[in-house]
Amino acid sequence: MSHTQRKKLPEVSRTLAEVALGTKKADLVVKNGTLVNVYTGELLPNTDVAVAEGRIAYVGDATHTIGENTQVVDAAGRYISPGLLDAHMHVESTMLSVTEFAKAALPKGTTGIFMDPHEIANVFGTEGVRWMHEEGRALPLKVYTTFPSCVPATDDLEDAGDKLDVSDIADGMCWDGVEGLGEVMNFPGVIYGDPKMSGEIAATINAGKTVTGHFPSDDEAALQAYIASGVTSDHETVTREQGLIKLRLGMHLMVREGSAWHDVKEVIKVVTEDHVRTDNIMLVTDDVYPQTLVEKGHLNHVVRRAIEEGVDPVTAIQMGSINTARYFKLDGDIGGIVPGKCADLLLIDDLKQMEPSTVITDGTVVFNNGAIQIEFPNYVYPEAARQSVHLAGPLTPQEFIMPSRVTGSTTKVNVIQAIENSARTAKGTATLTVESGIIQPDLAQDVVQLACIERHHGTGQISLAFAQGFGLQRGAVASTVAHDSHNLLVMGTNPEDMAFAANELAKMGGGMIVVLDGKVLASVPMVIAGLMSDQPLDIVVKEVQALEQAWQTLGCMLNAPFMTFSLVALPVIPEIRITNRGLADVEQFKLIPVEIVK
Amino acid sequence: MSHTQRKKLPEVSRTLAEVALGTKKADLVVKNGTLVNVYTGELLPNTDVAVAEGRIAYVGDATHTIGENTQVVDAAGRYISPGLLDAHMHVESTMLSVTEFAKAALPKGTTGIFMDPHEIANVFGTEGVRWMHEEGRALPLKVYTTFPSCVPATDDLEDAGDKLDVSDIADGMCWDGVEGLGEVMNFPGVIYGDPKMSGEIAATINAGKTVTGHFPSDDEAALQAYIASGVTSDHETVTREQGLIKLRLGMHLMVREGSAWHDVKEVIKVVTEDHVRTDNIMLVTDDVYPQTLVEKGHLNHVVRRAIEEGVDPVTAIQMGSINTARYFKLDGDIGGIVPGKCADLLLIDDLKQMEPSTVITDGTVVFNNGAIQIEFPNYVYPEAARQSVHLAGPLTPQEFIMPSRVTGSTTKVNVIQAIENSARTAKGTATLTVESGIIQPDLAQDVVQLACIERHHGTGQISLAFAQGFGLQRGAVASTVAHDSHNLLVMGTNPEDMAFAANELAKMGGGMIVVLDGKVLASVPMVIAGLMSDQPLDIVVKEVQALEQAWQTLGCMLNAPFMTFSLVALPVIPEIRITNRGLADVEQFKLIPVEIVK
Repeated sequence: MSHTQRKKLPEVSRTLAEVALGTKKADLVVKNGTLVNVYTGELLPNTDVAVAEGRIAYVGDATHTIGENTQVVDAAGRYISPGLLDAHMHVESTMLSVTEFAKAALPKGTTGIFMDPHEIANVFGTEGVRWMHEEGRALPLKVYTTFPSCVPATDDLEDAGDKLDVSDIADGMCWDGVEGLGEVMNFPGVIYGDPKMSGEIAATINAGKTVTGHFPSDDEAALQAYIASGVTSDHETVTREQGLIKLRLGMHLMVREGSAWHDVKEVIKVVTEDHVRTDNIMLVTDDVYPQTLVEKGHLNHVVRRAIEEGVDPVTAIQMGSINTARYFKLDGDIGGIVPGKCADLLLIDDLKQMEPSTVITDGTVVFNNGAIQIEFPNYVYPEAARQSVHLAGPLTPQEFIMPSRVTGSTTKVNVIQAIENSARTAKGTATLTVESGIIQPDLAQDVVQLACIERHHGTGQISLAFAQGFGLQRGAVASTVAHDSHNLLVMGTNPEDMAFAANELAKMGGGMIVVLDGKVLASVPMVIAGLMSDQPLDIVVKEVQALEQAWQTLGCMLNAPFMTFSLVALPVIPEIRITNRGLADVEQFKLIPVEIVK
Repeated sequence: MSHTQRKKLPEVSRTLAEVALGTKKADLVVKNGTLVNVYTGELLPNTDVAVAEGRIAYVGDATHTIGENTQVVDAAGRYISPGLLDAHMHVESTMLSVTEFAKAALPKGTTGIFMDPHEIANVFGTEGVRWMHEEGRALPLKVYTTFPSCVPATDDLEDAGDKLDVSDIADGMCWDGVEGLGEVMNFPGVIYGDPKMSGEIAATINAGKTVTGHFPSDDEAALQAYIASGVTSDHETVTREQGLIKLRLGMHLMVREGSAWHDVKEVIKVVTEDHVRTDNIMLVTDDVYPQTLVEKGHLNHVVRRAIEEGVDPVTAIQMGSINTARYFKLDGDIGGIVPGKCADLLLIDDLKQMEPSTVITDGTVVFNNGAIQIEFPNYVYPEAARQSVHLAGPLTPQEFIMPSRVTGSTTKVNVIQAIENSARTAKGTATLTVESGIIQPDLAQDVVQLACIERHHGTGQISLAFAQGFGLQRGAVASTVAHDSHNLLVMGTNPEDMAFAANELAKMGGGMIVVLDGKVLASVPMVIAGLMSDQPLDIVVKEVQALEQAWQTLGCMLNAPFMTFSLVALPVIPEIRITNRGLADVEQFKLIPVEIVK
């Protein structure tokens, strides 16, 4: 049932009342399971759930609601849990369209998400947000949007494809299904009164919606200023101590377990050791890569992790259902199994495993016997979304060589040092050979060349720099996933392969690519905004596996190097980055020369 | 600070952030108390709370926020609790104006109420609601309104002064400070699809507001139908079992301790014995009489009662603060002590006593050293509100005599039997003497005469009946507080005193009166709608004491007989009532003759 088919409670309450009273029969009854009651915190055996018009009509002994045409699902020996809600995630990180993500997430028990389409907003602005939002609204997965708050990430260091300002946010808050403001990353802007930040927050609060946060600092005065500004949650907490501080200050704590973030182990100690009241705690994934979806699951994995760390299963499920529904003021529709709510139910054999064997959304069985049971709508992105790579023209090797400003045979340069499994980089230096006036990469020092090409408006703008730490010994790689502006990022050992990689990727419509000696070794085409594939999960996973293998062929042995690579252009995390405008020193918040000339 | 002076968070967040950061100084700092943290459930010693612009800027060690002009309140040895919120009450029951009620309730720690101005709505419709709402909005007490849902209580048995329909509710939902629909008493109407009830609920849900309930039945199918219709709370629960059932069905449980309702002892067992999660539990007073305000307090008494029954004090305070704020989706503004929220703070020596020694609202000390510290605005009700008793003309004794339809010397009549301390009545019969064709009261049988006179539109309509069980031996009593239509209710031993009581009360502008032999023994003038005094609590309490004594002088020894009397006209509670249209059999839901003629 899509959002447009879903009926609001007042439209169906008459029917629900009749079913409860026994004067009308239910469409579906889940029979004789053990109910996970997230309101009282109990497990209640021998419970039925009767459903009509996609919503719950009766909970208890629902024998009187079963008629000839009632579909009965036997839940004997199984738990009946509310569907799981992910309070904060970026669908783009899965490399999947919202539709393909839904097909992957529903079988894992995720029945609702609050997505922050921050990446596509950097490419296509409000239109991009609208496309993903509309795609989501047509799905049996409940897709709510928090409107991206920080597009572009910086005003002065880079050029994104588009930007969002206060009026865009104010407009967005009126869209049906936009439930808040996406993670407010620019916390210095918030606490020091940047009019854009305070305007966005005011627009959100005035619309009665929720302002979600992002506060990675330990500065408590800054934290309190941030909270006093109206931001009510945070998902960047990585220590028990900070978690406790934030909860005491009334923040809603989003405890995160994503592909690269493993925060549950530490942060969940606020529950298992500090024993605080848990209703302001939610579970989130933030960023999940395709491989993780296959191997570990989605929000069910986060719930499972919480249980593994000692949280009572019912409490863990509360943190992935009713707490989130209530945070976004949607507990009238979702979050628990009681009359009137949408019938989003999971049948689970073992709560510790959190692997649903049956998934029901809006009263329809969508997953059962290991397989999806329904047809999904086929959302077609407009042609503009599939034409997101705009170069001035084909790139030539000549554009990737960097003349030296010095006259000697060597020169000293700033290099961007990659750190495995980290979003941070280190600012290093290297002394490189200059041949015929051209600065040469040095594979012995593990120094290779970087380029960042403006790809949204075909300006032809290109910047060059050097990277260290990837272990690349041959060939080149390129990506249009290059946070947050998502320009065309290229890294290589020689100008020919770099130009080839960039041109091939542009032809493909964006994505990720690995080339060697003028041949494509592997690629993940991401035709939607250069950020998402239009293929299903299993294909994308295989493509990503091949891509990772190709990186290894080039000599890079890092874990998920394409992810580390995609962050090399993000000028809001220390210490040094490349953007389309040049080399950015994040600590100084300014562009600096590549060559260090005294 | 009145509502109009109160600033929304986005208007002051800049200042709050500056105070948190230490670049601006606080207006007020509460220093070194033990914080009642309703978010984590902890007591945190040595805590300061810094306030600016009426909101909280910093919580913790706030030394850096104290400047030359900062007012510092020493909280050493005291607890700092959030102000208490009453989730459901009728101000009219206090017999006070909203202003005088606020003066009485603030010193007891109530800083916010959700009032249902159901009584004045029966007299003056939407206008009456607006007057009380506007009066409330000007006060330092935060007065929110739930719009009365069932006005009049019945369509067919009585005539109220006005009525509210779906469009009135829809309009009301747009008023600033109207936060929901008042207790939906007509639960059969809800579950059987009365368009008025479903229309009001839909209007409330569509406005994003909260539908509060009233469900005194034990019928579980009916309960589930009621819940499926969108009603989300109940305050009529009197047993632990029903409380648990409602909580399991996702209802928010309002546990009540009023002057006549003492539900905490039993219902709070869901916490102390069933150990359910408590975030859907609130504390309310519903109806509190003036004497109770003086002797026991207000919501602080309900919190105290919960603690006496074994609830942890922090949990009890949560049930009277954050839980209520969240239920009404106002937790962005009220309910706890964290940055950004309104600075509504209580300083309390002993949590078990729950008697605040200092009360702060919106950052202003409103109560300290046993006395109110501020001026209150003087709300003047419009003249129309003070002219609510409209009779066709002065009543004569002749109008209070009831001719018999039989020819013998005796006749059998239905009588309304009062039950002490109960809102119910019993349907009885009595054989009375007929003299000169007139049915005579019989003091030996404790049968006296009743009259109900339409008082809103001067129609001259009057109905007569007989009451038993009040013990009246002489004189007469009258009241314009006569739930729910609030016509002029008179009871007496002789027609002369009945006419005198009615006429004197009408002259007075309404209220309650006791007369004997053509003299007024006592009265409580209630010039506002005939429901509320314009005098302060201490005067009203004295008047009520005198009134009760006068009832005793007439021979009535019941506890608070004027309250039992005021319910004699309420045709929605079994078994038998008098309305302006006649004698109402509530079980049959129709008017019946007084005389039983075969």
